[in-house]
Amino acid sequence: METQTIKSLSQRFMNVRDLTMKLVQPLETEDFIIQSHPDVSPPKWHLAHTTWFFERFVLKEYFENYREFHPKYDFLFNSYYETVGPFQPRHQRGVLSRPSIQDIFQYRSFIDNYIVDLLEQHEESKSEQTDKIYSLIEIGMQHEQQHQELILMDVKYNFFVNPLHPVYKESNSAPSVKREPSYHTYDGGLVEIGHNGDGFSFDNESPNHKVWLEPFKLADQPVTNGEYLEFIKAGGYQKPYYWLSDGWNTVKKNDWQAPLYWSKDNDGEWFIFTLGGKKKLDPNEPVVHVSFYEADAFSRWRGKRLPTEAEWEHAARDLEINGNTMDTGHYHPAATKQTAGSRMFGDVWEWTASAYSPYPGSKPLEGALGEYNAKFMCNQMVLRGGSCATPQDHIRNTYRNFFPADKRWQFSGFRMAEDAL
Amino acid sequence: METQTIKSLSQRFMNVRDLTMKLVQPLETEDFIIQSHPDVSPPKWHLAHTTWFFERFVLKEYFENYREFHPKYDFLFNSYYETVGPFQPRHQRGVLSRPSIQDIFQYRSFIDNYIVDLLEQHEESKSEQTDKIYSLIEIGMQHEQQHQELILMDVKYNFFVNPLHPVYKESNSAPSVKREPSYHTYDGGLVEIGHNGDGFSFDNESPNHKVWLEPFKLADQPVTNGEYLEFIKAGGYQKPYYWLSDGWNTVKKNDWQAPLYWSKDNDGEWFIFTLGGKKKLDPNEPVVHVSFYEADAFSRWRGKRLPTEAEWEHAARDLEINGNTMDTGHYHPAATKQTAGSRMFGDVWEWTASAYSPYPGSKPLEGALGEYNAKFMCNQMVLRGGSCATPQDHIRNTYRNFFPADKRWQFSGFRMAEDAL
Amino acid sequence: METQTIKSLSQRFMNVRDLTMKLVQPLETEDFIIQSHPDVSPPKWHLAHTTWFFERFVLKEYFENYREFHPKYDFLFNSYYETVGPFQPRHQRGVLSRPSIQDIFQYRSFIDNYIVDLLEQHEESKSEQTDKIYSLIEIGMQHEQQHQELILMDVKYNFFVNPLHPVYKESNSAPSVKREPSYHTYDGGLVEIGHNGDGFSFDNESPNHKVWLEPFKLADQPVTNGEYLEFIKAGGYQKPYYWLSDGWNTVKKNDWQAPLYWSKDNDGEWFIFTLGGKKKLDPNEPVVHVSFYEADAFSRWRGKRLPTEAEWEHAARDLEINGNTMDTGHYHPAATKQTAGSRMFGDVWEWTASAYSPYPGSKPLEGALGEYNAKFMCNQMVLRGGSCATPQDHIRNTYRNFFPADKRWQFSGFRMAEDAL
Amino acid sequence: METQTIKSLSQRFMNVRDLTMKLVQPLETEDFIIQSHPDVSPPKWHLAHTTWFFERFVLKEYFENYREFHPKYDFLFNSYYETVGPFQPRHQRGVLSRPSIQDIFQYRSFIDNYIVDLLEQHEESKSEQTDKIYSLIEIGMQHEQQHQELILMDVKYNFFVNPLHPVYKESNSAPSVKREPSYHTYDGGLVEIGHNGDGFSFDNESPNHKVWLEPFKLADQPVTNGEYLEFIKAGGYQKPYYWLSDGWNTVKKNDWQAPLYWSKDNDGEWFIFTLGGKKKLDPNEPVVHVSFYEADAFSRWRGKRLPTEAEWEHAARDLEINGNTMDTGHYHPAATKQTAGSRMFGDVWEWTASAYSPYPGSKPLEGALGEYNAKFMCNQMVLRGGSCATPQDHIRNTYRNFFPADKRWQFSGFRMAEDAL
Ligand SMILES: [Fe+3]
Ligand SMILES: [Fe+3]
Ligand SMILES: [Fe+3]
Ligand SMILES: [Fe+3]
Repeated sequence: METQTIKSLSQRFMNVRDLTMKLVQPLETEDFIIQSHPDVSPPKWHLAHTTWFFERFVLKEYFENYREFHPKYDFLFNSYYETVGPFQPRHQRGVLSRPSIQDIFQYRSFIDNYIVDLLEQHEESKSEQTDKIYSLIEIGMQHEQQHQELILMDVKYNFFVNPLHPVYKESNSAPSVKREPSYHTYDGGLVEIGHNGDGFSFDNESPNHKVWLEPFKLADQPVTNGEYLEFIKAGGYQKPYYWLSDGWNTVKKNDWQAPLYWSKDNDGEWFIFTLGGKKKLDPNEPVVHVSFYEADAFSRWRGKRLPTEAEWEHAARDLEINGNTMDTGHYHPAATKQTAGSRMFGDVWEWTASAYSPYPGSKPLEGALGEYNAKFMCNQMVLRGGSCATPQDHIRNTYRNFFPADKRWQFSGFRMAEDAL
Repeated sequence: METQTIKSLSQRFMNVRDLTMKLVQPLETEDFIIQSHPDVSPPKWHLAHTTWFFERFVLKEYFENYREFHPKYDFLFNSYYETVGPFQPRHQRGVLSRPSIQDIFQYRSFIDNYIVDLLEQHEESKSEQTDKIYSLIEIGMQHEQQHQELILMDVKYNFFVNPLHPVYKESNSAPSVKREPSYHTYDGGLVEIGHNGDGFSFDNESPNHKVWLEPFKLADQPVTNGEYLEFIKAGGYQKPYYWLSDGWNTVKKNDWQAPLYWSKDNDGEWFIFTLGGKKKLDPNEPVVHVSFYEADAFSRWRGKRLPTEAEWEHAARDLEINGNTMDTGHYHPAATKQTAGSRMFGDVWEWTASAYSPYPGSKPLEGALGEYNAKFMCNQMVLRGGSCATPQDHIRNTYRNFFPADKRWQFSGFRMAEDAL
Repeated sequence: METQTIKSLSQRFMNVRDLTMKLVQPLETEDFIIQSHPDVSPPKWHLAHTTWFFERFVLKEYFENYREFHPKYDFLFNSYYETVGPFQPRHQRGVLSRPSIQDIFQYRSFIDNYIVDLLEQHEESKSEQTDKIYSLIEIGMQHEQQHQELILMDVKYNFFVNPLHPVYKESNSAPSVKREPSYHTYDGGLVEIGHNGDGFSFDNESPNHKVWLEPFKLADQPVTNGEYLEFIKAGGYQKPYYWLSDGWNTVKKNDWQAPLYWSKDNDGEWFIFTLGGKKKLDPNEPVVHVSFYEADAFSRWRGKRLPTEAEWEHAARDLEINGNTMDTGHYHPAATKQTAGSRMFGDVWEWTASAYSPYPGSKPLEGALGEYNAKFMCNQMVLRGGSCATPQDHIRNTYRNFFPADKRWQFSGFRMAEDAL
Repeated sequence: METQTIKSLSQRFMNVRDLTMKLVQPLETEDFIIQSHPDVSPPKWHLAHTTWFFERFVLKEYFENYREFHPKYDFLFNSYYETVGPFQPRHQRGVLSRPSIQDIFQYRSFIDNYIVDLLEQHEESKSEQTDKIYSLIEIGMQHEQQHQELILMDVKYNFFVNPLHPVYKESNSAPSVKREPSYHTYDGGLVEIGHNGDGFSFDNESPNHKVWLEPFKLADQPVTNGEYLEFIKAGGYQKPYYWLSDGWNTVKKNDWQAPLYWSKDNDGEWFIFTLGGKKKLDPNEPVVHVSFYEADAFSRWRGKRLPTEAEWEHAARDLEINGNTMDTGHYHPAATKQTAGSRMFGDVWEWTASAYSPYPGSKPLEGALGEYNAKFMCNQMVLRGGSCATPQDHIRNTYRNFFPADKRWQFSGFRMAEDAL
């Protein structure tokens, strides 16, 4: 917190909070309530839960004589912090019409005022707790940014299952550019990955540590819709040969024939559903909303493989973070990337070959926030790079996103790697 | 339709439609959307589906050059008419935020205007179709009355699962009166039941037909909370001896310990959740929200049985229909009934011992409406008498309500019978 | 028991017990163990359970100083008598390799000896308990006969799911005779049904009681494979119009296209699996292994209906019981019936339109055996007439068999009825 | 294959095949058939499947004019080789009574003769295919050894669910010795793990490759029942704090209170079920039949962690493989280990912190056998060291066993590790 005045923290806090409100502006009251899938949460819940996070972990701990906004909100808006107390089951978030949206808007204002107040108090006179408070508010902002992406993911899914296919926000596509992937070779050796301690990072990114890499090649861009379509046409979804066992079972059980949000009309033309509505499939865009299983099967079909997260991070280490992130307002992968950095950051979260597990010597956060990341380190795969729905200043080279191998409502794609001989 | 001018049909139509709107007045926009259980439907859906019923079965068939309100509404608001076309699955009605409530309000007005217009046309000049149209509108109104009760049932369930326990409408209880049940003896013999053709009735109530009844006794009032509490205290929910096999499996699977909406606080005091909020259990009120299995097990425990629907109808044949129906605005069974009629009609739907099956010589309605009642004549039990959530002019002595034996979110209770020696 | 000496009871007891052993003679040890569906039980279990029935309800109650064969058999071989004690869950009967078949054979001999011994004791000197004991042994024999049919049903299912399609017993078909159904008209009126008290009957057949019947027509033979094939060819399994709601859901969920055990080869020819192996479909045989839903849908398609159980019993009242029962050793419906009686008894259990419910004034058996029939009186439909797998002397005109509407591994068919004008 | 004559391969083949038969000798015919859990297979199936492996991958490919034993066995005894063809679903292996045990014994002899014959042919004159054939037979033997352990695992589970608790083989426990764990420190650095190519190994163990290890400490013995009991007594199964998210959900869903096969009598004394029957819990034995989740939670509770598979392999690299393996005939972990090697090999498979994933540069086997290991590299954790049910000559320092994190019917335990400062 040395390089940043409290003023700017307060300002950044309000910016993050305002962005959330801006994201839900296109929604009708009705849209805030529904949960069309157990993995998806109602936008109302995201608004309240991110607010509860500040109330529970900052105000209730550090604001003297703080009186909670509502006695039931601990139960209603705790997501998964078992050590904090019991909570509304995740798959039951959509059965609650109350509190109303207006109640939640008031809840947000109420908490915002307290947080700004708390920051002002500490601006005037720092205490032993000041650093801890700053740090928790920083985590709360990062947490809210994660839920901003979740809001876009969840609204997209909710609108997709509705036969009326509502549009979240009209979007003009930039001109589509075709570009063949080329492979860069990396020597590997004893490299370092993980966060080095400058600026914010989550507990799961530390410590910076050595990893031995064999020489490898990495594509300079994610796999595109056009490439993926070839896999479909080649019968990829009908041939168990390319699939992991769990993957093939998933394909059969759900009758997958294509990525999520793809559909084919009677003339055999492919369409995809986006936050801007249904549109013709653009072969030049990065493929998105595929599961790890699909990314893995495609790679095998192409005689290649996914990169490990260490390979990915090593390759991206010195690149500037820019690209088609949430900040462009496009909310969909684009076929127009130019720079090396923009080809690794933004557009799609990229599945890696790495299971999500703790770094050597890592330490989870203390207390209830120890549950934030560490308890998910099983049965999940790491994704890297941020997507078109991630706030740009939320992305880091060392950032470790993670999802179970069969999930695909997140903005997930992938790039290919192979061993260098 | 001879005894009634078109004017009055039009008037009654608008009255029914207005009552539906009045019933949803206490709801917030958010409350219209949710479906907290697969059996329950969002209030929005009820508003739209009852409207669609008129559009689909009247306007599309009989209004010349009628243009449908929206091309997707046939899919969205068809409930179960397979012969009409595919429809949104019942358990997925709560995942749709759009159309908005305002859209549905407009839909209602749009259709109302057309129906009134249609009736005026036929007032001016009757045609061959006039009687058919009147008959269908009558069915549509009766159908809407059924959904009025469903709205109350469903809102109650939705509010119950919410930890905030919202109140639909505050209600002042009338003074509670205790009255012991007494048994009337009926001689039985060759009696007639079923609708005799005067006024409206559903297809499942006809024809009027002969049934042989052995002499029987029937309680003059439904079982009360106080009586039911004795069953609980006697370990009724722990003893398989009293239960049907399917009933006992249901009890164990769902861990039932009491009727739906009952809860016990830490001091062992019982409370029930009502549309007026949570309140102390009144032992004098008829017990409500029990399944057929519970009604049956209680009766066995008391050495008695449920009446058949023929016994019930025979006993009620000459009684005037009045009592604690939806019209009282109380929306909860009351402990203050006075007349013989009020003791058989209103308060609670009464489970009978009769499986729901066709009457001898019965004919389902023609066309898609043949699906209205007939296709449910399996795995359901008949209930009689109407409840505190049934419009009073919707109740008939011959009316056959039906639910699967394990359902209890409807306002269902029961009265006891036994053989007369 | 007046008309029968104890000697003959003892003799009949051993005959029933021996027949069970004869029925399992074609089985390999391996065949005794498996449970290929939760509804099906391993033959070993049937052998043991029927034996346990005598041990539990006769020997433990009435044989002085009786020492049980094995302390765990109460748990292992109690089927569903909750009041007797806990039991191995029904769907888990096939996970038990021990006790071995040899153990069960010994168990049977052990109990047989005791029962014969008990009968001899009472032959020498009757006591107050003698009649009760005779009555319980009679029930035990009737019970064992029911399980004899279940053994054939269950072996058939077990062999069917095995890709090797084992043959239980080769069978030469009698020459197939085609005969068109004709309809007899019955006047109805106030008739009597139910058991009149002569000879054995189950509790659910009593008391004899009056029923009012409208005039009706009844086919003189069950529906044949040939007739049913027309329904299939007419798209019966694709058209919801003919089906009950629960029936249509069952068809879709299980992807039913034909009765159980039917299959079509690549040339479009139909085959059925029988206890004598797979054979070509004979259009003249009664259709068998259909659910109530299919029987009901077929009837609706033909513009007819199923008879009620009262109609069926009234029509069969004076007919002699003979026909193609288990006694013929054919174990499959035949196309060669001649007499009126043989056309109503044997071949196939006939679905009726009647839900299984207690007769007016009926009394279940006392004690644990009260669970024998009464607790299933919900969500089941009555079948009449006995099948090719029922011992002939087990069939009665008043006999009420019952199954849930979706079951079809029993030998179930149906005949058609209609209202007489 | 250079260091070994064909004679010895043939001899080793027969030894492996005979050992399988010896393992099933204590079983009754009935025991061969059952499948008491979807994860478990009937012993008959193991006997047939291991035989089919040789028939399908060796004889059908390399024995000229080979005629298959039975045309349906490809379907019945293929386990999961999708590229070979369709197969009986895994969870349905226990519904097949036929082929009989005798059939399968004949099948084994039939195939054994052919394999020995084939080996003799190639002894006389080697061909281009000889090495390939030797290699496939070697894999077949290793495969059969894996199923030998599975037979013990599955029989144990089958006998456990049986209320009669059959004994597979009586076993005298060696005297129990208590020994406190001590921790060895390893420097780490750039080490090598993976198979170096000498002798047989599975595809998943290659290639030998570099890994960077931070300094770490490793316990010199697995966690014991006594240590684990402390975790239970400390409320370990009630406190979400120590558990992975998926682990805690598993605990709650299955109501886990202790490892599999543990039970507590009414006096609070703990017992465990073994292949030698039920016996008192010995606190000095390694804890066995715990899931990864339990191993992980215990470690967290103790402030430690599980070792990675690289740490484990590095620590075990130079140890001789001996210990309490299947060869001792004890079939249960023992409390009497002496040497460093015996403390890392045998007794229990040890959960590691490593997800099962491909080694850098690894290549799956060609053809259908590529499905052998590679397709399971997702959602599984690696276990190391072999157990009391593993043939000793099947264990390698580099051997990678794997199971999903919630499975515990395998003989799985764990040892603790921690970072060295
Ligand atoms: Fe969160
Ligand atoms: Fe409706
Ligand atoms: Fe039985
Ligand atoms: Fe295998």
